[in-house]
Amino acid sequence: MAGLAVSVDTATEGVHFPPGLPPAAVARRALRCALSDLAAMGAVPAGYLLALSLPDGTDEAFVADFAAGLAADQKALGLRLLGGDTTATSGSLSVSVTVLGRVPSGAALRRSGACAGDRIGLSGAVGYAAKGLKDIQEGRTNTQAAQAFLLPQPQIALGRAGRGVAHAAIDISDGLVADIGHMARASGLRAVLDAGAIPACSDLPLTLAITAGDDYALALALPPGRGIKGFPLRDIGAFVERPPGVEVRGADGRLLPLEREGWTHF
Amino acid sequence: MAGLAVSVDTATEGVHFPPGLPPAAVARRALRCALSDLAAMGAVPAGYLLALSLPDGTDEAFVADFAAGLAADQKALGLRLLGGDTTATSGSLSVSVTVLGRVPSGAALRRSGACAGDRIGLSGAVGYAAKGLKDIQEGRTNTQAAQAFLLPQPQIALGRAGRGVAHAAIDISDGLVADIGHMARASGLRAVLDAGAIPACSDLPLTLAITAGDDYALALALPPGRGIKGFPLRDIGAFVERPPGVEVRGADGRLLPLEREGWTHF
Repeated sequence: MAGLAVSVDTATEGVHFPPGLPPAAVARRALRCALSDLAAMGAVPAGYLLALSLPDGTDEAFVADFAAGLAADQKALGLRLLGGDTTATSGSLSVSVTVLGRVPSGAALRRSGACAGDRIGLSGAVGYAAKGLKDIQEGRTNTQAAQAFLLPQPQIALGRAGRGVAHAAIDISDGLVADIGHMARASGLRAVLDAGAIPACSDLPLTLAITAGDDYALALALPPGRGIKGFPLRDIGAFVERPPGVEVRGADGRLLPLEREGWTHF
Repeated sequence: MAGLAVSVDTATEGVHFPPGLPPAAVARRALRCALSDLAAMGAVPAGYLLALSLPDGTDEAFVADFAAGLAADQKALGLRLLGGDTTATSGSLSVSVTVLGRVPSGAALRRSGACAGDRIGLSGAVGYAAKGLKDIQEGRTNTQAAQAFLLPQPQIALGRAGRGVAHAAIDISDGLVADIGHMARASGLRAVLDAGAIPACSDLPLTLAITAGDDYALALALPPGRGIKGFPLRDIGAFVERPPGVEVRGADGRLLPLEREGWTHF
């Protein structure tokens, strides 16, 4: 299995996306969310497997539209379907995507490699997907924020370029604070984030934007002074040697009070 | 991806297994059913990914027992967990397993390689899993048939030994007639099965035993006179050049009337 990166991601209607989305959008979003995990490893995707649980009574038009969404993204992203399973369910629509990618042996980025002193670089803004979900729930599906929720852009090229430079990486799917917390704890370090440096959607309170998730930007742990050529990153904080975890501080140095770090199922 | 075999298999409570099974049994069965697909390819399993959808309100004891089942089979089958995703669902418990295995480049067995004149060899009896499911539903979980349903034995060693000998292979998960029908249609041939030669559980009508599925034996297309050393196979029929499909004939040469070929979701 040398050089192979794999990841699985499940999207369930009513949990990960609102009921009533067009099937093609459900398909594309599920595939792109799964690919974001590969991007964070520095892997280049090669193919995927699809396990689809269709509610009883799903019609052929639904399946055709779903397949059209997959076909569009297979072409756009250079992927092929390697296998699949389709089952009926009395519950909600559920789409489980396993992605496979290539990465040179030993070169995969992990969340556990951050070092004390590393800076934290972020490849995009947070909060747009949460705003987009709200837009969609209110019937506005054509806003830029709605598109951020519906069509995440997995950062494949950035992850690949980060190999051998970044000490660790993660994608922001559970929320910025939660995911940087995952990276910090896996690395046995504390992440200190600078609230004022975080690029965030201004339509939401900052505390919501940094905990809402679904933004699929990458956060990378970088040695001081190092960047990734061709990819502008925002420096949003640093790793330090203190009790493992994550904290966010305002311009006055005070801790930002957060009700939660991010998305949790249980 | 040279030399890599992958497959995904989803098991949903109430669809693939009855409600109320012990969590460890659900876990082991899901893993073994997925591995059976690799066996049919002649691949040797290396690892798996797990996408688990847990109904709202699932407790920790459930998760601990489920994990214990996985741990037992990881050890028994020489596997490791490569990744996973756990989500909540308002629907039924659903377990999606993606298995990865190794097979020499170009050596994987496929369902599409059968040739006219090939004999069809079967590695086990059919109908026991169906009888076992009935036993379980009636509260008898310790019968041999119940164990056949609960703990399928993926035929890894047979599949591996079949490389370079068998022209095609498939596992009997949808029902003997349905799966041999898949192999026949994929190969552009007709499979003619001899009802009297099929080893089947005698507690069920033969027409049910050969369409019920879940037996996870392998069916292999073999050149006339060839066997697979060390693996006794029952010769249950042959592939011929007639309209693609499958038929089952009795000792008198008459077609066995079947209501359906096997399991279908839709």
